Amino acid sequence: MNGAPQFGKIVIFGVGLIGGSFALALKSAGEVGEVVGFGRRLGSLTQALDLGILDRAGFNIGQEVGNADLVLIATPVGTTPEIMARIAPCLGPQTVVTDAGSTKGDVVAAARAHFGERLGQFVPAHPIAGAENSGALAARADLYRQKQVVLTPLPENAVASVARVRAAWECCGALVRELSPAEHDRVFAAVSHLPHLLSFALVHDLTRRDNRDLLFDFAASGFRDFTRIAASHPEMWRDICLANRTALLDELDRYRAQLDELRDALQRSDGAGLEAAFDVARAARRAWAENKASE
Amino acid sequence: MNGAPQFGKIVIFGVGLIGGSFALALKSAGEVGEVVGFGRRLGSLTQALDLGILDRAGFNIGQEVGNADLVLIATPVGTTPEIMARIAPCLGPQTVVTDAGSTKGDVVAAARAHFGERLGQFVPAHPIAGAENSGALAARADLYRQKQVVLTPLPENAVASVARVRAAWECCGALVRELSPAEHDRVFAAVSHLPHLLSFALVHDLTRRDNRDLLFDFAASGFRDFTRIAASHPEMWRDICLANRTALLDELDRYRAQLDELRDALQRSDGAGLEAAFDVARAARRAWAENKASE
Repeated sequence: MNGAPQFGKIVIFGVGLIGGSFALALKSAGEVGEVVGFGRRLGSLTQALDLGILDRAGFNIGQEVGNADLVLIATPVGTTPEIMARIAPCLGPQTVVTDAGSTKGDVVAAARAHFGERLGQFVPAHPIAGAENSGALAARADLYRQKQVVLTPLPENAVASVARVRAAWECCGALVRELSPAEHDRVFAAVSHLPHLLSFALVHDLTRRDNRDLLFDFAASGFRDFTRIAASHPEMWRDICLANRTALLDELDRYRAQLDELRDALQRSDGAGLEAAFDVARAARRAWAENKASE
Repeated sequence: MNGAPQFGKIVIFGVGLIGGSFALALKSAGEVGEVVGFGRRLGSLTQALDLGILDRAGFNIGQEVGNADLVLIATPVGTTPEIMARIAPCLGPQTVVTDAGSTKGDVVAAARAHFGERLGQFVPAHPIAGAENSGALAARADLYRQKQVVLTPLPENAVASVARVRAAWECCGALVRELSPAEHDRVFAAVSHLPHLLSFALVHDLTRRDNRDLLFDFAASGFRDFTRIAASHPEMWRDICLANRTALLDELDRYRAQLDELRDALQRSDGAGLEAAFDVARAARRAWAENKASE
Protein backbone atom coordinates (compact mmCIF):
# COMPACT_ATOMS: atom_id res chain seq x y z
CA MET A 1 0.00 0.00 0.00
CA ASN A 2 2.97 2.30 -0.46
CA GLY A 3 2.64 5.04 -3.04
CA ALA A 4 0.19 5.10 -5.92
CA PRO A 5 -2.18 2.20 -6.57
CA GLN A 6 -1.18 -0.17 -9.39
CA PHE A 7 -4.44 0.51 -11.21
CA GLY A 8 -5.68 4.07 -11.61
CA LYS A 9 -9.07 3.23 -13.06
CA ILE A 10 -10.89 -0.06 -13.45
CA VAL A 11 -14.15 -0.58 -15.32
CA ILE A 12 -16.32 -3.57 -14.44
CA PHE A 13 -19.16 -4.93 -16.54
CA GLY A 14 -21.51 -6.94 -14.34
CA VAL A 15 -21.34 -5.98 -10.70
CA GLY A 16 -22.35 -9.25 -9.07
CA LEU A 17 -20.48 -11.67 -6.85
CA ILE A 18 -17.50 -12.01 -9.20
CA GLY A 19 -17.07 -8.41 -10.34
CA GLY A 20 -18.03 -6.99 -6.97
CA SER A 21 -15.56 -9.15 -5.05
CA PHE A 22 -12.81 -8.23 -7.51
CA ALA A 23 -13.46 -4.52 -6.88
CA LEU A 24 -13.64 -4.93 -3.11
CA ALA A 25 -10.41 -6.94 -3.04
CA LEU A 26 -8.47 -4.37 -5.07
CA LYS A 27 -9.85 -1.55 -2.95
CA SER A 28 -9.01 -3.41 0.21
CA ALA A 29 -5.43 -3.83 -1.09
CA GLY A 30 -5.26 -0.14 -1.91
CA GLU A 31 -4.38 -0.97 -5.50
CA VAL A 32 -7.11 0.83 -7.41
CA GLY A 33 -7.84 4.54 -7.73
CA GLU A 34 -11.38 4.42 -9.07
CA VAL A 35 -13.88 1.68 -9.88
CA VAL A 36 -16.63 2.38 -12.42
CA GLY A 37 -19.36 -0.16 -13.05
CA PHE A 38 -21.81 -0.97 -15.82
CA GLY A 39 -24.80 -3.23 -15.35
CA ARG A 40 -28.11 -4.10 -16.90
CA ARG A 41 -30.14 -3.36 -13.80
CA LEU A 42 -30.17 0.02 -12.10
CA GLY A 43 -30.98 -1.65 -8.77
CA SER A 44 -27.75 -3.67 -8.84
CA LEU A 45 -25.68 -0.59 -9.62
CA THR A 46 -27.30 1.38 -6.80
CA GLN A 47 -26.67 -1.51 -4.43
CA ALA A 48 -23.03 -1.75 -5.54
CA LEU A 49 -22.59 1.98 -4.92
CA ASP A 50 -24.16 1.66 -1.45
CA LEU A 51 -21.86 -1.28 -0.64
CA GLY A 52 -18.76 0.68 -1.62
CA ILE A 53 -18.00 -1.67 -4.50
CA LEU A 54 -18.23 1.12 -7.05
CA ASP A 55 -17.15 4.72 -6.95
CA ARG A 56 -19.36 5.57 -9.87
CA ALA A 57 -21.91 3.94 -12.15
CA GLY A 58 -20.91 4.37 -15.78
CA PHE A 59 -23.29 5.59 -18.49
CA ASN A 60 -21.05 6.25 -21.50
CA ILE A 61 -18.93 3.26 -22.43
CA GLY A 62 -16.66 5.23 -24.77
CA GLN A 63 -15.86 7.78 -22.10
CA GLU A 64 -15.18 5.27 -19.35
CA VAL A 65 -13.22 2.63 -21.25
CA GLY A 66 -10.87 4.94 -23.15
CA ASN A 67 -8.86 5.97 -20.10
CA ALA A 68 -9.27 2.76 -18.06
CA ASP A 69 -6.24 0.69 -17.08
CA LEU A 70 -8.22 -2.50 -16.76
CA VAL A 71 -11.66 -3.67 -17.89
CA LEU A 72 -13.23 -6.77 -16.34
CA ILE A 73 -16.13 -8.44 -18.13
CA ALA A 74 -18.00 -10.30 -15.40
CA THR A 75 -21.49 -10.54 -16.87
CA PRO A 76 -23.35 -13.78 -17.66
CA VAL A 77 -21.26 -15.43 -20.36
CA GLY A 78 -23.96 -15.07 -23.04
CA THR A 79 -23.59 -11.28 -23.03
CA THR A 80 -19.79 -11.29 -23.39
CA PRO A 81 -19.68 -10.99 -27.22
CA GLU A 82 -21.99 -7.97 -27.17
CA ILE A 83 -19.86 -6.22 -24.55
CA MET A 84 -16.71 -6.99 -26.50
CA ALA A 85 -18.28 -5.47 -29.62
CA ARG A 86 -19.22 -2.34 -27.73
CA ILE A 87 -15.91 -1.73 -25.96
CA ALA A 88 -13.55 -2.74 -28.80
CA PRO A 89 -13.65 0.60 -30.65
CA CYS A 90 -13.22 2.58 -27.41
CA LEU A 91 -10.16 0.93 -25.84
CA GLY A 92 -7.28 3.22 -25.00
CA PRO A 93 -3.81 2.05 -26.03
CA GLN A 94 -3.00 1.20 -22.42
CA THR A 95 -6.29 -0.52 -21.61
CA VAL A 96 -6.11 -4.25 -20.82
CA VAL A 97 -9.35 -6.25 -20.92
CA THR A 98 -10.01 -9.52 -19.13
CA ASP A 99 -13.02 -11.68 -18.34
CA ALA A 100 -14.18 -14.18 -15.74
CA GLY A 101 -15.96 -16.80 -17.85
CA SER A 102 -16.02 -20.48 -16.86
CA THR A 103 -15.18 -21.58 -20.41
CA LYS A 104 -12.45 -20.15 -22.56
CA GLY A 105 -12.68 -21.53 -26.11
CA ASP A 106 -15.93 -19.67 -26.77
CA VAL A 107 -14.66 -16.47 -25.15
CA VAL A 108 -11.49 -16.54 -27.26
CA ALA A 109 -13.58 -17.09 -30.41
CA ALA A 110 -15.74 -14.09 -29.51
CA ALA A 111 -12.65 -12.02 -28.79
CA ARG A 112 -11.16 -12.94 -32.17
CA ALA A 113 -14.41 -11.88 -33.82
CA HIS A 114 -14.77 -8.56 -32.01
CA PHE A 115 -11.43 -7.12 -30.94
CA GLY A 116 -9.80 -7.19 -34.37
CA GLU A 117 -6.38 -5.57 -34.24
CA ARG A 118 -6.80 -5.00 -30.53
CA LEU A 119 -7.05 -8.72 -29.73
CA GLY A 120 -3.69 -8.49 -27.96
CA GLN A 121 -5.28 -6.25 -25.34
CA PHE A 122 -7.62 -9.05 -24.21
CA VAL A 123 -6.26 -11.57 -21.70
CA PRO A 124 -8.82 -14.35 -20.99
CA ALA A 125 -9.14 -15.47 -17.38
CA HIS A 126 -11.23 -17.74 -15.16
CA PRO A 127 -11.32 -17.22 -11.39
CA ILE A 128 -12.16 -20.54 -9.66
CA ALA A 129 -14.31 -19.18 -6.90
CA GLY A 130 -17.95 -19.94 -6.63
CA ALA A 131 -20.26 -19.31 -3.73
CA GLU A 132 -23.73 -20.40 -2.74
CA ASN A 133 -25.07 -16.90 -3.30
CA SER A 134 -24.75 -14.49 -6.16
CA GLY A 135 -25.23 -10.77 -6.62
CA ALA A 136 -23.43 -7.70 -5.34
CA LEU A 137 -24.71 -8.29 -1.82
CA ALA A 138 -22.72 -11.54 -1.67
CA ALA A 139 -19.47 -9.87 -2.81
CA ARG A 140 -16.55 -10.13 -0.37
CA ALA A 141 -13.03 -8.69 -0.44
CA ASP A 142 -11.63 -12.11 0.48
CA LEU A 143 -13.52 -14.25 -2.05
CA TYR A 144 -10.37 -14.91 -4.09
CA ARG A 145 -7.89 -15.30 -1.26
CA GLN A 146 -5.91 -18.51 -1.83
CA LYS A 147 -8.26 -19.39 -4.70
CA GLN A 148 -6.93 -20.27 -8.14
CA VAL A 149 -7.33 -17.99 -11.13
CA VAL A 150 -6.47 -19.46 -14.53
CA LEU A 151 -5.17 -17.14 -17.24
CA THR A 152 -5.32 -18.51 -20.80
CA PRO A 153 -3.12 -16.02 -22.64
CA LEU A 154 -3.30 -15.64 -26.41
CA PRO A 155 -0.28 -15.65 -28.73
CA GLU A 156 -1.24 -12.04 -29.53
CA ASN A 157 -0.95 -10.86 -25.91
CA ALA A 158 2.00 -8.71 -24.93
CA VAL A 159 3.85 -10.13 -21.95
CA ALA A 160 3.17 -6.88 -20.13
CA SER A 161 -0.61 -7.22 -20.63
CA VAL A 162 -0.63 -10.73 -19.17
CA ALA A 163 1.48 -9.45 -16.28
CA ARG A 164 -1.05 -6.68 -15.60
CA VAL A 165 -3.93 -9.13 -15.32
CA ARG A 166 -1.83 -11.47 -13.20
CA ALA A 167 -0.92 -8.57 -10.90
CA ALA A 168 -4.56 -7.59 -10.45
CA TRP A 169 -5.57 -11.10 -9.40
CA GLU A 170 -2.54 -11.42 -7.14
CA CYS A 171 -3.60 -8.20 -5.43
CA CYS A 172 -6.87 -10.03 -4.68
CA GLY A 173 -4.89 -12.78 -2.95
CA ALA A 174 -5.42 -15.32 -5.73
CA LEU A 175 -3.02 -18.03 -6.92
CA VAL A 176 -2.57 -17.35 -10.62
CA ARG A 177 -1.94 -20.19 -13.09
CA GLU A 178 -1.68 -20.37 -16.85
CA LEU A 179 -3.13 -22.90 -19.29
CA SER A 180 -3.94 -22.79 -22.97
CA PRO A 181 -7.64 -22.12 -23.66
CA ALA A 182 -8.16 -25.66 -24.99
CA GLU A 183 -6.34 -27.23 -22.05
CA HIS A 184 -8.43 -25.12 -19.67
CA ASP A 185 -11.66 -26.30 -21.25
CA ARG A 186 -10.68 -29.96 -21.14
CA VAL A 187 -9.60 -29.75 -17.49
CA PHE A 188 -12.79 -28.02 -16.35
CA ALA A 189 -15.01 -30.31 -18.41
CA ALA A 190 -13.58 -33.15 -16.32
CA VAL A 191 -13.46 -31.68 -12.82
CA SER A 192 -16.34 -29.22 -12.88
CA HIS A 193 -18.72 -29.34 -15.84
CA LEU A 194 -19.17 -33.12 -15.84
CA PRO A 195 -19.83 -33.35 -12.07
CA HIS A 196 -22.45 -30.61 -12.40
CA LEU A 197 -24.16 -32.46 -15.25
CA LEU A 198 -24.09 -35.73 -13.28
CA SER A 199 -25.53 -34.09 -10.19
CA PHE A 200 -28.31 -32.34 -12.12
CA ALA A 201 -29.03 -35.68 -13.83
CA LEU A 202 -29.49 -37.57 -10.56
CA VAL A 203 -31.91 -35.07 -9.05
CA HIS A 204 -33.80 -34.65 -12.32
CA ASP A 205 -34.21 -38.40 -12.64
CA LEU A 206 -35.57 -38.73 -9.09
CA THR A 207 -38.16 -36.02 -9.69
CA ARG A 208 -39.69 -38.18 -12.44
CA ARG A 209 -40.52 -41.07 -10.12
CA ASP A 210 -43.96 -41.78 -8.76
CA ASN A 211 -42.39 -42.31 -5.32
CA ARG A 212 -40.25 -39.14 -5.42
CA ASP A 213 -41.60 -37.86 -2.10
CA LEU A 214 -40.53 -41.05 -0.36
CA LEU A 215 -37.12 -40.93 -2.05
CA PHE A 216 -36.42 -37.32 -1.10
CA ASP A 217 -37.67 -38.02 2.39
CA PHE A 218 -34.95 -40.62 2.99
CA ALA A 219 -32.17 -38.78 1.20
CA ALA A 220 -29.46 -37.96 3.74
CA SER A 221 -25.97 -36.50 3.94
CA GLY A 222 -24.44 -38.44 1.03
CA PHE A 223 -27.20 -37.18 -1.23
CA ARG A 224 -26.86 -33.69 0.21
CA ASP A 225 -23.17 -33.45 -0.71
CA PHE A 226 -23.49 -35.16 -4.08
CA THR A 227 -26.35 -32.90 -5.17
CA ARG A 228 -25.26 -29.57 -3.71
CA ILE A 229 -24.19 -28.45 -7.19
CA ALA A 230 -27.57 -29.46 -8.61
CA ALA A 231 -28.86 -26.26 -6.98
CA SER A 232 -26.60 -24.25 -9.32
CA HIS A 233 -27.97 -21.70 -11.73
CA PRO A 234 -29.71 -23.47 -14.68
CA GLU A 235 -29.14 -20.71 -17.23
CA MET A 236 -25.48 -20.34 -16.33
CA TRP A 237 -24.91 -24.09 -16.54
CA ARG A 238 -26.82 -24.39 -19.79
CA ASP A 239 -24.43 -21.79 -21.24
CA ILE A 240 -21.35 -23.53 -19.82
CA CYS A 241 -22.45 -26.90 -21.22
CA LEU A 242 -23.11 -25.43 -24.65
CA ALA A 243 -19.93 -23.37 -24.66
CA ASN A 244 -17.81 -26.38 -23.71
CA ARG A 245 -19.90 -28.91 -25.60
CA THR A 246 -17.12 -30.81 -27.36
CA ALA A 247 -14.94 -31.38 -24.31
CA LEU A 248 -17.98 -32.15 -22.16
CA LEU A 249 -19.31 -34.74 -24.61
CA ASP A 250 -15.90 -36.37 -24.57
CA GLU A 251 -15.86 -36.45 -20.75
CA LEU A 252 -19.40 -37.75 -20.63
CA ASP A 253 -18.49 -40.60 -22.95
CA ARG A 254 -15.45 -41.53 -20.89
CA TYR A 255 -17.60 -41.48 -17.78
CA ARG A 256 -20.26 -43.66 -19.38
CA ALA A 257 -17.56 -46.18 -20.29
CA GLN A 258 -16.40 -46.14 -16.67
CA LEU A 259 -19.97 -46.69 -15.47
CA ASP A 260 -20.33 -49.58 -17.89
CA GLU A 261 -17.25 -51.21 -16.36
CA LEU A 262 -18.61 -50.85 -12.84
CA ARG A 263 -22.00 -52.10 -13.98
CA ASP A 264 -20.35 -55.18 -15.45
CA ALA A 265 -18.51 -55.81 -12.21
CA LEU A 266 -21.73 -55.46 -10.25
CA GLN A 267 -23.63 -57.67 -12.69
CA ARG A 268 -20.95 -60.38 -12.25
CA SER A 269 -20.96 -59.84 -8.45
CA ASP A 270 -17.26 -59.10 -8.81
CA GLY A 271 -16.65 -57.79 -5.30
CA ALA A 272 -12.90 -57.63 -5.73
CA GLY A 273 -13.25 -55.53 -8.88
CA LEU A 274 -15.63 -53.10 -7.20
CA GLU A 275 -13.51 -52.83 -4.09
CA ALA A 276 -10.35 -52.21 -6.13
CA ALA A 277 -12.00 -49.30 -7.96
CA PHE A 278 -13.45 -47.86 -4.74
CA ASP A 279 -10.09 -48.22 -3.06
CA VAL A 280 -8.24 -46.31 -5.79
CA ALA A 281 -10.93 -43.62 -5.70
CA ARG A 282 -10.80 -43.25 -1.94
CA ALA A 283 -7.01 -43.00 -1.87
CA ALA A 284 -7.06 -40.35 -4.62
CA ARG A 285 -9.87 -38.38 -2.97
CA ARG A 286 -8.10 -38.42 0.40
CA ALA A 287 -4.77 -37.39 -1.11
CA TRP A 288 -6.55 -34.58 -2.95
CA ALA A 289 -8.22 -33.30 0.23
CA GLU A 290 -4.96 -33.42 2.19
CA ASN A 291 -3.18 -31.63 -0.59
CA LYS A 292 -5.82 -28.89 -0.74
CA ALA A 293 -5.79 -28.48 3.03
CA SER A 294 -2.05 -27.86 3.03
CA GLU A 295 -2.17 -25.26 0.26
CA MET B 1 -35.41 -40.73 33.64
CA ASN B 2 -38.01 -41.56 36.24
CA GLY B 3 -37.86 -45.02 37.74
CA ALA B 4 -36.18 -48.03 36.18
CA PRO B 5 -34.56 -47.82 32.75
CA GLN B 6 -36.57 -49.28 29.86
CA PHE B 7 -33.76 -51.72 29.07
CA GLY B 8 -32.10 -53.67 31.84
CA LYS B 9 -29.32 -55.18 29.75
CA ILE B 10 -28.21 -54.52 26.19
CA VAL B 11 -25.60 -56.52 24.29
CA ILE B 12 -23.81 -54.88 21.37
CA PHE B 13 -21.80 -56.68 18.71
CA GLY B 14 -19.36 -54.27 17.11
CA VAL B 15 -18.50 -51.32 19.29
CA GLY B 16 -17.69 -48.71 16.64
CA LEU B 17 -19.36 -45.45 15.70
CA ILE B 18 -22.83 -46.97 15.28
CA GLY B 19 -22.91 -49.37 18.24
CA GLY B 20 -20.97 -47.01 20.48
CA SER B 21 -23.24 -44.05 19.78
CA PHE B 22 -26.31 -46.22 20.42
CA ALA B 23 -24.92 -47.20 23.83
CA LEU B 24 -23.93 -43.65 24.75
CA ALA B 25 -27.34 -42.29 23.74
CA LEU B 26 -29.25 -44.84 25.81
CA LYS B 27 -26.98 -44.24 28.78
CA SER B 28 -27.34 -40.51 28.41
CA ALA B 29 -31.14 -40.97 28.43
CA GLY B 30 -30.91 -43.16 31.54
CA GLU B 31 -32.72 -45.93 29.72
CA VAL B 32 -30.25 -48.81 30.02
CA GLY B 33 -29.04 -50.67 33.09
CA GLU B 34 -25.97 -52.38 31.66
CA VAL B 35 -24.22 -52.43 28.29
CA VAL B 36 -22.08 -55.44 27.38
CA GLY B 37 -20.01 -55.42 24.19
CA PHE B 38 -18.44 -58.00 21.89
CA GLY B 39 -15.84 -57.15 19.31
CA ARG B 40 -13.18 -58.74 17.17
CA ARG B 41 -10.39 -56.56 18.44
CA LEU B 42 -9.41 -56.32 22.08
CA GLY B 43 -8.12 -52.77 21.52
CA SER B 44 -11.56 -51.52 20.47
CA LEU B 45 -13.23 -53.12 23.48
CA THR B 46 -10.68 -51.60 25.86
CA GLN B 47 -11.20 -48.22 24.25
CA ALA B 48 -14.99 -48.56 24.51
CA LEU B 49 -14.64 -49.40 28.20
CA ASP B 50 -12.40 -46.38 28.75
CA LEU B 51 -14.88 -44.12 26.94
CA GLY B 52 -17.77 -45.30 29.14
CA ILE B 53 -19.56 -46.87 26.16
CA LEU B 54 -19.47 -50.34 27.72
CA ASP B 55 -19.91 -51.47 31.29
CA ARG B 56 -18.33 -54.81 30.50
CA ALA B 57 -16.68 -56.62 27.61
CA GLY B 58 -18.42 -59.93 26.94
CA PHE B 59 -16.58 -63.23 26.52
CA ASN B 60 -19.30 -65.87 26.59
CA ILE B 61 -22.08 -65.20 24.08
CA GLY B 62 -24.45 -67.75 25.59
CA GLN B 63 -24.17 -66.22 29.04
CA GLU B 64 -24.63 -62.62 27.91
CA VAL B 65 -27.36 -62.99 25.33
CA GLY B 66 -29.67 -65.26 27.32
CA ASN B 67 -30.72 -62.61 29.80
CA ALA B 68 -30.37 -59.54 27.51
CA ASP B 69 -33.39 -57.38 26.73
CA LEU B 70 -31.95 -56.14 23.46
CA VAL B 71 -29.10 -57.24 21.20
CA LEU B 72 -27.74 -54.86 18.55
CA ILE B 73 -25.66 -56.27 15.71
CA ALA B 74 -23.53 -53.35 14.52
CA THR B 75 -20.57 -55.14 12.96
CA PRO B 76 -19.52 -54.87 9.30
CA VAL B 77 -22.43 -56.34 7.36
CA GLY B 78 -20.41 -59.32 6.09
CA THR B 79 -20.14 -60.75 9.60
CA THR B 80 -23.87 -60.48 10.40
CA PRO B 81 -24.83 -64.04 9.36
CA GLU B 82 -22.10 -65.53 11.55
CA ILE B 83 -23.23 -63.53 14.56
CA MET B 84 -26.84 -64.52 13.94
CA ALA B 85 -25.83 -68.17 13.83
CA ARG B 86 -23.97 -67.85 17.10
CA ILE B 87 -26.62 -65.97 19.07
CA ALA B 88 -29.71 -67.76 17.73
CA PRO B 89 -29.50 -70.78 20.07
CA CYS B 90 -28.83 -68.56 23.11
CA LEU B 91 -31.65 -66.02 22.92
CA GLY B 92 -33.85 -65.72 25.98
CA PRO B 93 -37.63 -65.66 25.40
CA GLN B 94 -37.68 -61.91 26.08
CA THR B 95 -34.61 -61.00 24.03
CA VAL B 96 -35.20 -58.80 20.97
CA VAL B 97 -32.46 -58.60 18.36
CA THR B 98 -31.92 -55.80 15.87
CA ASP B 99 -29.22 -54.69 13.45
CA ALA B 100 -27.89 -51.54 11.81
CA GLY B 101 -27.12 -52.68 8.27
CA SER B 102 -27.44 -50.36 5.27
CA THR B 103 -29.26 -53.02 3.24
CA LYS B 104 -32.15 -55.10 4.44
CA GLY B 105 -33.00 -57.81 1.89
CA ASP B 106 -29.74 -59.66 2.56
CA VAL B 107 -30.05 -59.24 6.33
CA VAL B 108 -33.58 -60.62 6.28
CA ALA B 109 -32.43 -63.58 4.17
CA ALA B 110 -29.65 -64.28 6.67
CA ALA B 111 -32.10 -63.97 9.56
CA ARG B 112 -34.46 -66.44 7.90
CA ALA B 113 -31.57 -68.85 7.50
CA HIS B 114 -30.23 -68.56 11.03
CA PHE B 115 -32.96 -67.65 13.51
CA GLY B 116 -35.35 -70.49 12.65
CA GLU B 117 -38.33 -70.47 14.99
CA ARG B 118 -36.95 -67.40 16.69
CA LEU B 119 -37.14 -65.26 13.57
CA GLY B 120 -39.90 -63.21 15.21
CA GLN B 121 -37.39 -61.97 17.77
CA PHE B 122 -35.34 -60.21 15.08
CA VAL B 123 -36.46 -56.72 14.00
CA PRO B 124 -34.30 -55.40 11.11
CA ALA B 125 -33.32 -51.72 11.28
CA HIS B 126 -31.17 -49.14 9.52
CA PRO B 127 -30.10 -45.95 11.28
CA ILE B 128 -29.42 -43.22 8.68
CA ALA B 129 -26.49 -41.59 10.36
CA GLY B 130 -23.07 -41.61 8.86
CA ALA B 131 -20.07 -39.64 9.92
CA GLU B 132 -16.69 -38.85 8.44
CA ASN B 133 -14.97 -40.91 11.09
CA SER B 134 -15.56 -44.40 12.33
CA GLY B 135 -14.59 -46.35 15.45
CA ALA B 136 -15.52 -46.11 19.10
CA LEU B 137 -13.56 -42.89 19.50
CA ALA B 138 -15.95 -41.17 17.09
CA ALA B 139 -19.06 -42.35 18.99
CA ARG B 140 -21.33 -39.60 20.33
CA ALA B 141 -24.49 -39.66 22.44
CA ASP B 142 -26.19 -37.26 19.99
CA LEU B 143 -25.31 -39.01 16.72
CA TYR B 144 -28.92 -40.12 16.15
CA ARG B 145 -30.69 -37.01 17.40
CA GLN B 146 -33.24 -35.95 14.75
CA LYS B 147 -31.82 -38.57 12.39
CA GLN B 148 -34.03 -41.13 10.71
CA VAL B 149 -33.99 -44.80 11.63
CA VAL B 150 -35.85 -47.16 9.33
CA LEU B 151 -37.35 -50.33 10.77
CA THR B 152 -38.28 -53.04 8.27
CA PRO B 153 -40.42 -55.34 10.40
CA LEU B 154 -41.08 -58.93 9.38
CA PRO B 155 -44.52 -60.56 9.29
CA GLU B 156 -43.19 -62.87 12.02
CA ASN B 157 -42.42 -60.00 14.44
CA ALA B 158 -44.68 -59.51 17.42
CA VAL B 159 -45.97 -55.96 17.64
CA ALA B 160 -44.35 -55.70 21.07
CA SER B 161 -40.91 -56.60 19.67
CA VAL B 162 -41.12 -53.89 17.00
CA ALA B 163 -42.26 -51.45 19.67
CA ARG B 164 -39.21 -52.31 21.81
CA VAL B 165 -36.78 -51.55 19.00
CA ARG B 166 -38.67 -48.39 18.14
CA ALA B 167 -38.54 -47.29 21.76
CA ALA B 168 -34.78 -47.84 21.95
CA TRP B 169 -34.15 -45.65 18.91
CA GLU B 170 -36.58 -43.03 20.12
CA CYS B 171 -34.63 -42.89 23.40
CA CYS B 172 -31.62 -42.02 21.20
CA GLY B 173 -33.57 -39.06 19.81
CA ALA B 174 -34.12 -40.67 16.40
CA LEU B 175 -37.13 -40.29 14.11
CA VAL B 176 -38.33 -43.84 13.54
CA ARG B 177 -39.97 -44.85 10.24
CA GLU B 178 -41.12 -48.17 8.82
CA LEU B 179 -40.74 -49.60 5.31
CA SER B 180 -40.82 -53.11 3.95
CA PRO B 181 -37.32 -54.57 3.42
CA ALA B 182 -37.74 -54.47 -0.38
CA GLU B 183 -39.02 -50.91 -0.33
CA HIS B 184 -36.12 -49.90 1.89
CA ASP B 185 -33.59 -51.38 -0.50
CA ARG B 186 -35.10 -49.69 -3.54
CA VAL B 187 -35.22 -46.31 -1.81
CA PHE B 188 -31.62 -46.45 -0.61
CA ALA B 189 -30.37 -47.77 -3.94
CA ALA B 190 -31.70 -44.54 -5.45
CA VAL B 191 -30.74 -41.92 -2.88
CA SER B 192 -27.59 -43.40 -1.35
CA HIS B 193 -26.03 -46.40 -3.07
CA LEU B 194 -26.21 -45.01 -6.60
CA PRO B 195 -24.70 -41.61 -5.66
CA HIS B 196 -21.84 -43.41 -3.92
CA LEU B 197 -21.18 -45.54 -7.00
CA LEU B 198 -21.31 -42.46 -9.26
CA SER B 199 -18.93 -40.53 -7.04
CA PHE B 200 -16.44 -43.41 -6.78
CA ALA B 201 -16.69 -43.76 -10.59
CA LEU B 202 -15.77 -40.15 -11.27
CA VAL B 203 -12.70 -40.14 -9.06
CA HIS B 204 -11.61 -43.58 -10.26
CA ASP B 205 -11.90 -42.47 -13.87
CA LEU B 206 -9.79 -39.34 -13.26
CA THR B 207 -7.03 -41.36 -11.62
CA ARG B 208 -6.57 -43.27 -14.90
CA ARG B 209 -5.69 -40.17 -16.90
CA ASP B 210 -2.18 -39.20 -17.91
CA ASN B 211 -2.95 -35.63 -16.81
CA ARG B 212 -4.49 -36.62 -13.47
CA ASP B 213 -2.22 -34.34 -11.46
CA LEU B 214 -3.33 -31.34 -13.49
CA LEU B 215 -6.98 -32.37 -13.16
CA PHE B 216 -6.85 -32.80 -9.40
CA ASP B 217 -4.93 -29.56 -9.10
CA PHE B 218 -7.81 -27.57 -10.60
CA ALA B 219 -10.60 -29.46 -8.89
CA ALA B 220 -12.45 -27.05 -6.61
CA SER B 221 -15.52 -26.85 -4.40
CA GLY B 222 -17.98 -28.48 -6.81
CA PHE B 223 -15.67 -31.47 -7.12
CA ARG B 224 -15.12 -31.48 -3.37
CA ASP B 225 -18.82 -31.81 -2.59
CA PHE B 226 -19.58 -34.25 -5.39
CA THR B 227 -16.74 -36.57 -4.40
CA ARG B 228 -16.92 -36.38 -0.62
CA ILE B 229 -18.60 -39.79 -0.56
CA ALA B 230 -15.84 -41.24 -2.77
CA ALA B 231 -13.72 -41.21 0.38
CA SER B 232 -16.11 -43.76 1.94
CA HIS B 233 -14.97 -47.16 3.07
CA PRO B 234 -14.30 -49.41 0.03
CA GLU B 235 -15.00 -52.72 1.78
CA MET B 236 -18.23 -51.46 3.30
CA TRP B 237 -19.42 -50.09 -0.02
CA ARG B 238 -18.42 -53.23 -1.88
CA ASP B 239 -20.65 -55.16 0.53
CA ILE B 240 -23.53 -52.73 0.19
CA CYS B 241 -23.36 -52.85 -3.62
CA LEU B 242 -23.30 -56.64 -3.64
CA ALA B 243 -26.02 -56.94 -1.02
CA ASN B 244 -28.31 -54.57 -2.91
CA ARG B 245 -27.17 -55.62 -6.36
CA THR B 246 -30.56 -56.04 -8.02
CA ALA B 247 -32.01 -52.70 -6.96
CA LEU B 248 -28.72 -50.93 -7.63
CA LEU B 249 -28.45 -52.35 -11.15
CA ASP B 250 -31.95 -51.14 -11.79
CA GLU B 251 -31.10 -47.63 -10.53
CA LEU B 252 -27.89 -47.58 -12.51
CA ASP B 253 -29.78 -48.43 -15.69
CA ARG B 254 -32.34 -45.71 -15.08
CA TYR B 255 -29.52 -43.25 -14.48
CA ARG B 256 -27.71 -44.29 -17.65
CA ALA B 257 -30.92 -43.69 -19.60
CA GLN B 258 -31.16 -40.24 -18.03
CA LEU B 259 -27.54 -39.50 -18.96
CA ASP B 260 -28.23 -40.64 -22.52
CA GLU B 261 -31.07 -38.12 -22.72
CA LEU B 262 -28.89 -35.28 -21.50
CA ARG B 263 -26.12 -36.37 -23.84
CA ASP B 264 -28.52 -36.23 -26.76
CA ALA B 265 -29.64 -32.75 -25.75
CA LEU B 266 -26.01 -31.63 -25.52
CA GLN B 267 -25.15 -33.30 -28.84
CA ARG B 268 -28.01 -31.39 -30.49
CA SER B 269 -27.02 -28.15 -28.69
CA ASP B 270 -30.54 -28.18 -27.25
CA GLY B 271 -30.06 -25.42 -24.70
CA ALA B 272 -33.75 -25.26 -23.79
CA GLY B 273 -33.81 -28.99 -23.06
CA LEU B 274 -30.73 -28.80 -20.84
CA GLU B 275 -32.00 -25.74 -19.01
CA ALA B 276 -35.41 -27.32 -18.41
CA ALA B 277 -33.79 -30.38 -16.81
CA PHE B 278 -31.41 -28.25 -14.73
CA ASP B 279 -34.29 -26.05 -13.65
CA VAL B 280 -36.39 -28.98 -12.44
CA ALA B 281 -33.36 -30.38 -10.61
CA ARG B 282 -32.54 -27.09 -8.92
CA ALA B 283 -36.11 -26.53 -7.78
CA ALA B 284 -36.30 -30.06 -6.35
CA ARG B 285 -32.89 -29.80 -4.66
CA ARG B 286 -33.79 -26.44 -3.10
CA ALA B 287 -37.17 -27.68 -1.90
CA TRP B 288 -35.46 -30.72 -0.40
CA ALA B 289 -32.89 -28.61 1.46
CA GLU B 290 -35.56 -26.27 2.81
CA ASN B 291 -37.66 -29.21 3.90
CA LYS B 292 -34.72 -30.84 5.70
CA ALA B 293 -33.78 -27.57 7.38
CA SER B 294 -37.27 -27.21 8.81
CA GLU B 295 -37.44 -30.76 10.17
